[in-house]
Amino acid sequence: MVIVMGSEATQDDIESIVGIVSTSGGEAFVSRGVNRTIIGLVGDIERFAALNIRGMSGVADVMRVSMPYKLVSRENHPERSTVRVGGVPIGPDTVTLIAGPCAVETPQQTLEAAEMAKAAGATLLRGGAFKPRTSPYAFQGLGEEGLRILADVREKTGLPIVTEVVDAHDVELVASYADMLQIGTRNTQNFALLQAVGKAGKPVMLKRGMSGTIEEWLMSAEYIAQRGNLDIVLCERGIRTFETATRNTLDVSAVPVAQRLSHLPVIIDPSHSGGRRDLVLPLTRAAIAVGADGVIIDVHPHPEQALCDGPQALVNGDLRELARVMRQFPPLLGRTLTDATHAVPVPA
Amino acid sequence: MVIVMGSEATQDDIESIVGIVSTSGGEAFVSRGVNRTIIGLVGDIERFAALNIRGMSGVADVMRVSMPYKLVSRENHPERSTVRVGGVPIGPDTVTLIAGPCAVETPQQTLEAAEMAKAAGATLLRGGAFKPRTSPYAFQGLGEEGLRILADVREKTGLPIVTEVVDAHDVELVASYADMLQIGTRNTQNFALLQAVGKAGKPVMLKRGMSGTIEEWLMSAEYIAQRGNLDIVLCERGIRTFETATRNTLDVSAVPVAQRLSHLPVIIDPSHSGGRRDLVLPLTRAAIAVGADGVIIDVHPHPEQALCDGPQALVNGDLRELARVMRQFPPLLGRTLTDATHAVPVPA
Amino acid sequence: MVIVMGSEATQDDIESIVGIVSTSGGEAFVSRGVNRTIIGLVGDIERFAALNIRGMSGVADVMRVSMPYKLVSRENHPERSTVRVGGVPIGPDTVTLIAGPCAVETPQQTLEAAEMAKAAGATLLRGGAFKPRTSPYAFQGLGEEGLRILADVREKTGLPIVTEVVDAHDVELVASYADMLQIGTRNTQNFALLQAVGKAGKPVMLKRGMSGTIEEWLMSAEYIAQRGNLDIVLCERGIRTFETATRNTLDVSAVPVAQRLSHLPVIIDPSHSGGRRDLVLPLTRAAIAVGADGVIIDVHPHPEQALCDGPQALVNGDLRELARVMRQFPPLLGRTLTDATHAVPVPA
Amino acid sequence: MVIVMGSEATQDDIESIVGIVSTSGGEAFVSRGVNRTIIGLVGDIERFAALNIRGMSGVADVMRVSMPYKLVSRENHPERSTVRVGGVPIGPDTVTLIAGPCAVETPQQTLEAAEMAKAAGATLLRGGAFKPRTSPYAFQGLGEEGLRILADVREKTGLPIVTEVVDAHDVELVASYADMLQIGTRNTQNFALLQAVGKAGKPVMLKRGMSGTIEEWLMSAEYIAQRGNLDIVLCERGIRTFETATRNTLDVSAVPVAQRLSHLPVIIDPSHSGGRRDLVLPLTRAAIAVGADGVIIDVHPHPEQALCDGPQALVNGDLRELARVMRQFPPLLGRTLTDATHAVPVPA
Repeated sequence: MVIVMGSEATQDDIESIVGIVSTSGGEAFVSRGVNRTIIGLVGDIERFAALNIRGMSGVADVMRVSMPYKLVSRENHPERSTVRVGGVPIGPDTVTLIAGPCAVETPQQTLEAAEMAKAAGATLLRGGAFKPRTSPYAFQGLGEEGLRILADVREKTGLPIVTEVVDAHDVELVASYADMLQIGTRNTQNFALLQAVGKAGKPVMLKRGMSGTIEEWLMSAEYIAQRGNLDIVLCERGIRTFETATRNTLDVSAVPVAQRLSHLPVIIDPSHSGGRRDLVLPLTRAAIAVGADGVIIDVHPHPEQALCDGPQALVNGDLRELARVMRQFPPLLGRTLTDATHAVPVPA
Repeated sequence: MVIVMGSEATQDDIESIVGIVSTSGGEAFVSRGVNRTIIGLVGDIERFAALNIRGMSGVADVMRVSMPYKLVSRENHPERSTVRVGGVPIGPDTVTLIAGPCAVETPQQTLEAAEMAKAAGATLLRGGAFKPRTSPYAFQGLGEEGLRILADVREKTGLPIVTEVVDAHDVELVASYADMLQIGTRNTQNFALLQAVGKAGKPVMLKRGMSGTIEEWLMSAEYIAQRGNLDIVLCERGIRTFETATRNTLDVSAVPVAQRLSHLPVIIDPSHSGGRRDLVLPLTRAAIAVGADGVIIDVHPHPEQALCDGPQALVNGDLRELARVMRQFPPLLGRTLTDATHAVPVPA
Repeated sequence: MVIVMGSEATQDDIESIVGIVSTSGGEAFVSRGVNRTIIGLVGDIERFAALNIRGMSGVADVMRVSMPYKLVSRENHPERSTVRVGGVPIGPDTVTLIAGPCAVETPQQTLEAAEMAKAAGATLLRGGAFKPRTSPYAFQGLGEEGLRILADVREKTGLPIVTEVVDAHDVELVASYADMLQIGTRNTQNFALLQAVGKAGKPVMLKRGMSGTIEEWLMSAEYIAQRGNLDIVLCERGIRTFETATRNTLDVSAVPVAQRLSHLPVIIDPSHSGGRRDLVLPLTRAAIAVGADGVIIDVHPHPEQALCDGPQALVNGDLRELARVMRQFPPLLGRTLTDATHAVPVPA
Repeated sequence: MVIVMGSEATQDDIESIVGIVSTSGGEAFVSRGVNRTIIGLVGDIERFAALNIRGMSGVADVMRVSMPYKLVSRENHPERSTVRVGGVPIGPDTVTLIAGPCAVETPQQTLEAAEMAKAAGATLLRGGAFKPRTSPYAFQGLGEEGLRILADVREKTGLPIVTEVVDAHDVELVASYADMLQIGTRNTQNFALLQAVGKAGKPVMLKRGMSGTIEEWLMSAEYIAQRGNLDIVLCERGIRTFETATRNTLDVSAVPVAQRLSHLPVIIDPSHSGGRRDLVLPLTRAAIAVGADGVIIDVHPHPEQALCDGPQALVNGDLRELARVMRQFPPLLGRTLTDATHAVPVPA
């Protein structure tokens, strides 16, 4: 921690700080400049944070110099992690395709979407049974009925399932069906939910908050990790900016930045980022090229009838091109598309 | 709803839309221009929304023309509402001061802060027992112990209490102590929580999401209203922008805009907006001047020891000026500061 | 300047930095922590900036601790400045109303608008002869003909004039008519223009960039000041955010923040901020209440015929209320509305 | 254009609008709904814009449905354009690498950087002689001396040059040396400058404004096109958002969006977007993958001595990987890296 003193700070102000720091077990190094004095603190940052130094006389600014997260930080865990979901890896050597319908609507639609996903190279099935919707008048998902449909489709296709949980209450229920729990962008700072999934014993996909900084995202991951669960995959899904031509602005830079700060895998959601079907393939290519460990994509057999986010789902006609992209791009990054050969049987 | 056809749209494309709209019980009015054709839809917007018209052939854009919220809309309820909290009004004729510590730490600190609040003209006491914190390593609040302290201080000072709830699970518990339930900025789209407070039988203060549009904020209020609770007060608390000199950017325009769109009262939180003590008084003046129905302010007897947001709390030396502002500004807007004479006894 | 070393930094890395700093005439203070070492630099910041320390081995971050502007900084000039425009003061003791049409269209319209302005309490007349417009197909202003109209209206009403200049080429021409040169939001970082107005011998009103930080705004002011002109008034006019209900988001906090960092006067433009007539009066009240040294407002005798920004102009029916606000609010801040008695004759 | 009437609009309000539209030579189609009436306008949009319909009684909203730009629009020019710079193409069949130093500092440094650029596959040389800098105390470029150095290096390497112009005054001078004129992000709405380069007879690279929407960017291109110059290349260089981990947020979606709206080529600047050397290669890969028609990259032989933006320049050790990316990625998009065989001799 570094303390910058204002130009009006007195010698007494400086001594007070040195005193309070040393009382709390730290050391303070004073550098006197012509205009300003700066004080470097060495010791336990949690204890310094409790001192409210910013409020002390003569202090102009306080700057933090170490990371506010530990368990998910790469500083203490230099090797990048691989997370396994029902045996399927998401990590630095592969690119994993997760695909499926935005919302589970019927058994037929879910099965068709899963088959589309598989045809394109997906090894994990996405599908929402609990849907957080901005409008209370919009379709909110089938709930447990949707989870049962997903489990049936897993049975038929062999694809492990990724599905969202929106309420701490439902974590146990959702975890009893799902292979991976998804935390959506509106819940990235729903700390009660983060703690609940941290204890659920299943891998978690944590979307970045709509206006969350990369640092806040990693702090939210730390909430999950603190409860003993380090099987976390970060998912960039576009951030809110002033641009209105796209639903969100996909922040591809977040992938290398987060991979450098944290050992956790990072994937991209090109469907929700742009909110437009014509952007999904270009953004998928960009995602793989920038170094994402996977992508998660909406597909729908009949998007014109979709109850949720139809305009952004890929359709049958797009699959051939998606499959080509998934096959041809990863090798240029020294990776392979995750396929059945990567999956390891999960002990019952 | 208005449909804008692309320049390449065919006569068949137009007829398909007219057909599908009429099948779902609506009417479509076609205006053919030189470059573009536009189609106006008249009928039940919820049914149109389900049609996925945006995905149909030839469609360039679909624009919504009516409000997506109903119960909280001013269109159907032209008179602005007054919400009573433990008998104290928040509404168009008054300016209500809510003040207290950011977090409840000890009985002594809470009582002193409540007395400071009262001295400045507050008629409601704020104080957090459950604190949502970005870092899992930060102080998370005293929980039920904090609620008991608040209830004691209410007993001693007569100030009804406003306190945050962060988990749907805890709503019943918090509602058993609180006079008003607060939903924080990270939970504005935690729909499970919104629905829970909608059923709790207590007034709700709904903060705007850190990056929420005014429309999304009103949609979140609609979630609460839908469960039968219209005692909702909207609270603007600063939005996230590129500017880093302040913690958030207080959006004062949101007050008149939201008051025009909705009949609900709108207040401002000048403490969390700026995140700096030296901005609290200027922003409080701006809040009253722009037409807010109240303000909610952090005060702390010893901010240098505060466990949460110490740097933004007003201290004893600021109270005289706060009291002056609260007394002198409202009359210029034809309002009075809410005081004991406004409170009506609440039936037991 | 503070250098934060990465956790992998070696002793050699640290010594290299100490060496290079001392070679360039500065001093480096090293604070060794458990996880990180920080180095405080004391000396000439411009020379350190040229060292590219950020690129050196082992460096994790470099933080600047002193202000990058000098002439406009309050650190070296604690007393707040008053700028006089044709004798009319803008400064800490008064609130100055500048009003007039967005664009000069005809002599008649300009004169009527000036009379409206005066009736509301304005002591300076605004009006654009050169208009920067996003679309090349929109009305671009009358040019020199507009300046002549403004000069005529000044003759008739006694109001000094504030008008925009958009091209370094035109500065001399515009300065030969105007009492104050305005730099618009799209030109806040047009450095050639800033330097030209810095030499023009007339006061300058510098609008904040649409997405400019307060620091960048002050750096732009420094460009003007560097050429010998310290008669600069800063004007906050709303920033670009994700919210679409208003044209821009008025950042009222920028007023106290900029007044604390700089000695220059700071005013607010409530017309262009909101872009809606119904917001102008509430935002004007907020502007005065937050401590602005003045406001600049669009008025138009017939806004439905305006060639530019008609929807945001105040009309005759609003003037009585504007006049009331301008009279009643300043005294609550210990100020008075600038009126004829404040103007001092300007030597010919 | 579509007019949405408020729920309180009267029959008279509607008839007034129909009347005024028909007087100005257009047609108005009225669609009456249960809650709202909408009016579709057909005719000359420029004339409607002048009517200030938004200010008329009963009007709730006015929505534009056609594009505000014409010459650069793809609607009237479906085939994507190729722009030639000194004979080198930038367009839909190729990926063009433009590289060189951020600022021209010395003949030696510029020549070395040009040779680095060429080794990596560049066919155009970038380099700044006039530098717009946020701080008046930062290095502002060598001016004409820098242009002479660039011309010498062109002579030696055969690479045509791309260089920035920051003042309308200097356009003729810069155009006498340069093969392509660059408009920087701070000048995207410097309309005087846009008009000047529109008449200069040289291709133009137009960077997107730091906080400019895609629509505004195309409007700025329209300013250039209006003066008779359609040899315009759009350059996405990152936008300003709340995220501080990167200097700007690269908006890769802007590439397919702008390519769909306009026939002009679109390239990406991965150096200024991220502002960090470690992000340049990942963002370059993403740029090509998303479909950019080229990239423009900073390289520097000795970045630790760079006078401008050293921390983001690629160094010698990065060139091999850059060359590999430039060679291997374009074929996956059916493109080739622009090389000497694409250049056509330019008539003297």
